[in-house]
Amino acid sequence: MTSVITLLTDYGLADGYVAACHGVIAGIAPESRIIDVCHLVPSGDVRRAAAILAQTVPHLPPGVHIAAVNPVGGSRRAVAIEAGEHVFLGPDNGVLSWAVQAVGGARAARELTNEELFRRPVSPTFHGRDVFAPVAARLATGQEMAGLGPEYPLDRLVSLRAPTSLVREGAAEGEVLSIDAHGNTQLSISADDLAVLGVRPGETLVVWLGRRHVSVPFRETFAAVPPGELVAFTDSAGLVALAVNSGDASQRLALPPGAHVRLSPVS
Amino acid sequence: MTSVITLLTDYGLADGYVAACHGVIAGIAPESRIIDVCHLVPSGDVRRAAAILAQTVPHLPPGVHIAAVNPVGGSRRAVAIEAGEHVFLGPDNGVLSWAVQAVGGARAARELTNEELFRRPVSPTFHGRDVFAPVAARLATGQEMAGLGPEYPLDRLVSLRAPTSLVREGAAEGEVLSIDAHGNTQLSISADDLAVLGVRPGETLVVWLGRRHVSVPFRETFAAVPPGELVAFTDSAGLVALAVNSGDASQRLALPPGAHVRLSPVS
Amino acid sequence: MTSVITLLTDYGLADGYVAACHGVIAGIAPESRIIDVCHLVPSGDVRRAAAILAQTVPHLPPGVHIAAVNPVGGSRRAVAIEAGEHVFLGPDNGVLSWAVQAVGGARAARELTNEELFRRPVSPTFHGRDVFAPVAARLATGQEMAGLGPEYPLDRLVSLRAPTSLVREGAAEGEVLSIDAHGNTQLSISADDLAVLGVRPGETLVVWLGRRHVSVPFRETFAAVPPGELVAFTDSAGLVALAVNSGDASQRLALPPGAHVRLSPVS
Repeated sequence: MTSVITLLTDYGLADGYVAACHGVIAGIAPESRIIDVCHLVPSGDVRRAAAILAQTVPHLPPGVHIAAVNPVGGSRRAVAIEAGEHVFLGPDNGVLSWAVQAVGGARAARELTNEELFRRPVSPTFHGRDVFAPVAARLATGQEMAGLGPEYPLDRLVSLRAPTSLVREGAAEGEVLSIDAHGNTQLSISADDLAVLGVRPGETLVVWLGRRHVSVPFRETFAAVPPGELVAFTDSAGLVALAVNSGDASQRLALPPGAHVRLSPVS
Repeated sequence: MTSVITLLTDYGLADGYVAACHGVIAGIAPESRIIDVCHLVPSGDVRRAAAILAQTVPHLPPGVHIAAVNPVGGSRRAVAIEAGEHVFLGPDNGVLSWAVQAVGGARAARELTNEELFRRPVSPTFHGRDVFAPVAARLATGQEMAGLGPEYPLDRLVSLRAPTSLVREGAAEGEVLSIDAHGNTQLSISADDLAVLGVRPGETLVVWLGRRHVSVPFRETFAAVPPGELVAFTDSAGLVALAVNSGDASQRLALPPGAHVRLSPVS
Repeated sequence: MTSVITLLTDYGLADGYVAACHGVIAGIAPESRIIDVCHLVPSGDVRRAAAILAQTVPHLPPGVHIAAVNPVGGSRRAVAIEAGEHVFLGPDNGVLSWAVQAVGGARAARELTNEELFRRPVSPTFHGRDVFAPVAARLATGQEMAGLGPEYPLDRLVSLRAPTSLVREGAAEGEVLSIDAHGNTQLSISADDLAVLGVRPGETLVVWLGRRHVSVPFRETFAAVPPGELVAFTDSAGLVALAVNSGDASQRLALPPGAHVRLSPVS
């Protein structure tokens, strides 16, 4: 049976680092299928990695998912978390927390301490290759969770503060969650939040960015407005995104991830 | 038996979008092999995607080929086209047309309307994941074409205007077809066009770019000239390309895709 | 049985070139597993490709490894080199030499002259697709080395000058070997060289860059210093690397690959 192992890192694609992880996995679990979730996470950007994994995992088959992104290499414990039909491997810095939540929450966790499962010597700067890849491959070939190391209390697992949205005083408040390769600016405000406000596709939103504000049509897709124009739409994760048809909304709006945004209906 | 599914998109590699497509396919067709044709097509650039697919498909095994590139998301019908030993899936905006032509032309087509084959709810902005990936995976696991949706009249399929070349008055005229990662500038003029003019490797071409013109050696490979010098050669698609050995011809010549170019022998 | 074929090129990821190689391999050897070592080698940078392959191959399973990087396309003989449990395919320009050394040195070599194994016609600018990919796929499906072409004398194989380090007069001398996507600057000086000098993690190094010098803490990992500060550490290849925690050491130090570097203990 084919088992699935996925990889999310900030290693970039200009080196052989990702290939080394593939090689270690292929050597131990030659029948596994590896899916590269993303390797262009900005270096050490745990929140960005957490968002990508959480939005992708609902579309991945049951498997073992590695997230090797760490701003302070080696200083966090390496853990395995069981959630839904998945096992997540990564440093306990919160990078796994949103994905674990997205598939139903943690059922059990282990600290990865059994060095017999590692590739040795373990490089202090390359746990993806030496710890997570071989452990994932062994899980894919039948290794029991109990053999990875001691139980890890679920209440000690680090969780990232979830990006929140709040509907109050006739507006939805949230933040810029992430910006994709097209410059589409995804907010933490969901289409459901807008529905609470009674805003439906076809209507117009006022987008408040600090003191600035701009009127933006809310449409089914970004293609509903002429090229070059701003639009809000519900993106493939169910969240409100600001886009420019055939353009780059992040450049137009100059909104960094984390920036506060408020949406209200045109009154 | 392994079946092949290929993916061509403008999703970029900085997000989990491509992985979501892989995940959907792997979940339905775990024995399939996925080949990533390219995911760095400039956003919505249908002609560039069409050129990449047409030049790559002769080297791909029989399979199902997805081209999810659309400047106006969701507004075109999704189709499946049978041609040669291949099935092509994409929006009916012409992105498939050159590849279909390259493998012998369309034999039959279906509109993708059977929502039972889709991943639901279908995001209006992510047909690659929700429509094309699951349909490709089902085709790879035995789904009949007839079950995808109604027949689609072949004469309604959108075709991109083919880049043309013309040999007249002792010159070959054409356009810049595409520019690769090295800056090599591929023309729509073929080596065969030059042969009609009697130009063979070892001779010199005059390249006319609007009012400018420049003399360029025509050689077997770009390496036949010293580093830093312009050269014309027959590229791996059989087309004439302008290159700078160890340099970037597109920067040197400042020729965008679509620019008119005329080649004549030195008289 | 699954066989492994790996690919290292300077083709970039913005075209269908890599996919064409995958397609050729999948057509001949449908059961093989392809690992992409790296495709973002700077165009024609044989030393960079050689360094990536040599540092990655210890982590790859036994297999056939293609390195299609050549500054002077087509002008070098194509060879297959047996070393350890691996076969390496590439132009005889030295790109394979460090990897071959890393797995024990060449045991035998063949020149690739049997055109029946190639994809024909062979494009003079695309040996990756037309020569190396099909030969690798045939080796993966049982082709004997002897059928590739005549024996190639091992003493004629081109070797790149190895980056060297030298410990003398209380200092270790070497050069900048490569710079990764994070800007980490890998030296040809190993942790073992520093041990000879009696320098251990926790101590401070003086880094001499021509006439400049700078004091840098030598630590277990780059994370041992505050963000924004320079640090030296032993990287995942066992070599000394200069980094800036959460920053870019190559920008800070302005050291190109090949630059001479000298390390000495604080006296």
